[in-house]
Amino acid sequence: MDMEVIAALTEILDAERVSVTDADRALHGRDQSPHAAHLPDAVIWPQTTAEVSAILKLANTRHIPIVGWGAGSSLEGNPIPVHGGIVVNFQRMNQILAIHAEDFQVVVQPGIFYKDMNKILGQFGLFFAPDPGANASIGGMIGNNAAGTRTVRYGATRDNTLALEVVLANGKVIRTGSRSVKQSAGYDLTHLIVGSEGTLGLVTEATLKLTPLPEHFSAVLATFSHTAKAAEAVFSIIGAGLGPAALELLDAAAVTYMNQDSTINLPVAPTLLMEFHGATAEALHTELALVRDVCADCGATRFEAGVGRDERDRLWHGRHQLGEILFRAHPKETYLITDVSVPISRYPDLATFTAGLMETMNINGALFGHAGDGNLHTVVFAPPDSPRQQADLQRFNDHVVQKAINLDGTCTGEHGVGIGKQKYMVQEHGEAAVDVMRQIKTMFDPHNILNPGKILG
Amino acid sequence: MDMEVIAALTEILDAERVSVTDADRALHGRDQSPHAAHLPDAVIWPQTTAEVSAILKLANTRHIPIVGWGAGSSLEGNPIPVHGGIVVNFQRMNQILAIHAEDFQVVVQPGIFYKDMNKILGQFGLFFAPDPGANASIGGMIGNNAAGTRTVRYGATRDNTLALEVVLANGKVIRTGSRSVKQSAGYDLTHLIVGSEGTLGLVTEATLKLTPLPEHFSAVLATFSHTAKAAEAVFSIIGAGLGPAALELLDAAAVTYMNQDSTINLPVAPTLLMEFHGATAEALHTELALVRDVCADCGATRFEAGVGRDERDRLWHGRHQLGEILFRAHPKETYLITDVSVPISRYPDLATFTAGLMETMNINGALFGHAGDGNLHTVVFAPPDSPRQQADLQRFNDHVVQKAINLDGTCTGEHGVGIGKQKYMVQEHGEAAVDVMRQIKTMFDPHNILNPGKILG
Repeated sequence: MDMEVIAALTEILDAERVSVTDADRALHGRDQSPHAAHLPDAVIWPQTTAEVSAILKLANTRHIPIVGWGAGSSLEGNPIPVHGGIVVNFQRMNQILAIHAEDFQVVVQPGIFYKDMNKILGQFGLFFAPDPGANASIGGMIGNNAAGTRTVRYGATRDNTLALEVVLANGKVIRTGSRSVKQSAGYDLTHLIVGSEGTLGLVTEATLKLTPLPEHFSAVLATFSHTAKAAEAVFSIIGAGLGPAALELLDAAAVTYMNQDSTINLPVAPTLLMEFHGATAEALHTELALVRDVCADCGATRFEAGVGRDERDRLWHGRHQLGEILFRAHPKETYLITDVSVPISRYPDLATFTAGLMETMNINGALFGHAGDGNLHTVVFAPPDSPRQQADLQRFNDHVVQKAINLDGTCTGEHGVGIGKQKYMVQEHGEAAVDVMRQIKTMFDPHNILNPGKILG
Repeated sequence: MDMEVIAALTEILDAERVSVTDADRALHGRDQSPHAAHLPDAVIWPQTTAEVSAILKLANTRHIPIVGWGAGSSLEGNPIPVHGGIVVNFQRMNQILAIHAEDFQVVVQPGIFYKDMNKILGQFGLFFAPDPGANASIGGMIGNNAAGTRTVRYGATRDNTLALEVVLANGKVIRTGSRSVKQSAGYDLTHLIVGSEGTLGLVTEATLKLTPLPEHFSAVLATFSHTAKAAEAVFSIIGAGLGPAALELLDAAAVTYMNQDSTINLPVAPTLLMEFHGATAEALHTELALVRDVCADCGATRFEAGVGRDERDRLWHGRHQLGEILFRAHPKETYLITDVSVPISRYPDLATFTAGLMETMNINGALFGHAGDGNLHTVVFAPPDSPRQQADLQRFNDHVVQKAINLDGTCTGEHGVGIGKQKYMVQEHGEAAVDVMRQIKTMFDPHNILNPGKILG
């Protein structure tokens, strides 16, 4: 990187918050996805919105790529600096600026991590509900419109974001939305920024909706003879108007992987892992009885409700470890993660198709998903030295995405477009809509400095 | 209007679906707001997306203003054709295209009316929850991001819109979003269009989220000695985590007006009109007991829960008639409607301030609102021949908006910007954010043909 640019950066920040070392660059070259690493030219750690603004002004004038960085836990290559440039690590902008407990709201900087934030909010009886599993940064969650196990009940990050402070490509700072939950005053810039993966601006502050911690809850396990039957039960549970706070599908392989965690010992079978919240113990009890009936009707081979808090926490911890376990179990193979989502009535079709395809294509991996909201994942593996099997992974992804789109769904429910889903954008949205997205990108970022090479290429 | 344009329109549509009569123009010159009427040059009734596309191509080439029209029930002058041109009445595009009952979704054309749609959906045990009170069109609700009595629990129109078909200014047709409730595939065009009041495109199809009709519900009435006390109770009910399906505040004047409906006979006092839904009768019972306690703590002078379905329907009918009654009661006066919204903790402050201001300024009218989501309305009156009192109405609005913005709120919770709220846009969002909105408008509509003179002027 041009020494003049480094000098300008160190003028904006302290020298110790600008790094061009190989170690720092390597740490900011890849996320949790299988996409190839690409090193930035420099990594910087701003502490204020004014610093972010000054950096963007500089980058915009000199046409230097700028990529925001949170925890590096994203799964589609979203923050990989494929065109080099400067990675902006928000680690030093990680404060809670205000807790409006009485309004169920919090104002935070983007660098705070999800679990760290929720630990503090728990003291107020509150939590930020969209649970991505990983200890993602809030800035990253906003960038990707992250979601997870609790989204079936509480929505995704977009649904829980009220207001933002955003630094635009030219360094101008805008504030979008407000703390009012009702907003009808002009164009919805907040929701345009959420999910834009750092390609329209850098978020420097966010006001989030919170949820009261449930007083009465119960984890539920149900097992089935086939993945297809478990997926049918998902549709029946949602269709019956039951309101799970989480509804996860795991195929037998996923359960086997989860059992590698020494604290988990589940029967190896297609499984639904659920959680229900109730205003009262009685309400919860009534709902669980209905869930039991629905699962029985769908042929559940085993049903266990009302497991205690410790067991529940252990199960969810195990579920959240699943990705890590999968990656660790295949150290010598490359992997691919699918992330399609469909209307809930189409979920059995999608799950059955995907499980069948893994079998017929002889694809190795596990199938699981946030079934309650129609989201289905697989993590699939292949040896790096087999071009045929590598090509099979890509063909598998193509088939799964094609199926999801045919079922009125989407190529990505929660991981974002990043690098891997760009090729499906026109197929999903049509040329005219993608063209509008391109115009929006050009309007916000005429020199294409903000996370170039993502979403629209 | 240029005869050549009329000829071109009649070529696109049948002659009987193009009108330049004074009667038709007068019918499309004003909404339910106090804003001055302005006649369009022509009114047309398209039947297909292709026709809408052809009309927009024509208008875009010739720079003719185009304003969408649904029911004419909006309250901020949103569809008044202030620059003349063509009003596009969607009355003949009012079909339900698909009911996906199993996914709690419906696909409709924009011209269908809210109540008519819900009557049909009721046969499937479903309803579209954002209830604007008026029998608005779905296209209009999308345009204004309409909300209402049920929004406290089920969200506004934006929160319940999954996918759209939109005709752009140049006649191109885009499809946004999908039927998947989880979406992370690029920029959120759907939510950008919702609330854009027809200034970015014309919606020709919408996929909406539905809600199962509640099996167990109860209307609740609580009265208080002062409006301030009733507003305190609102905050306490929401703060206690109780989940009302509706939570309306009415001052004594509003109750008096409601009582003009022969079926309504409420005690004249500041009142909370609520509704609660329960999965079971027991759950509902438990919640109502808690509501009673909270209201008692807040000094309720009277509390009545568990009123039957007929009484409940009568009460809500009365509440929905309130606007009409108010307008009819002051045939010779002009009126102004305020529509601010704040975080719920600030609601008592806002309500107390507004009630006090009505008194000190000697402003005549009623105060009410969708209190549960922080929304407060007043309808205030003044004789048309008193410039002082007319000016007072404007000053009153200015003060209320200023107060709401100071309380971290917004100038409009649900009526939209239309004509009357434009002057507050910079104050609420700041110049930089409004500038981004302007750029978006210019990008979508370079010739400013789509509802010109609205939102950003």
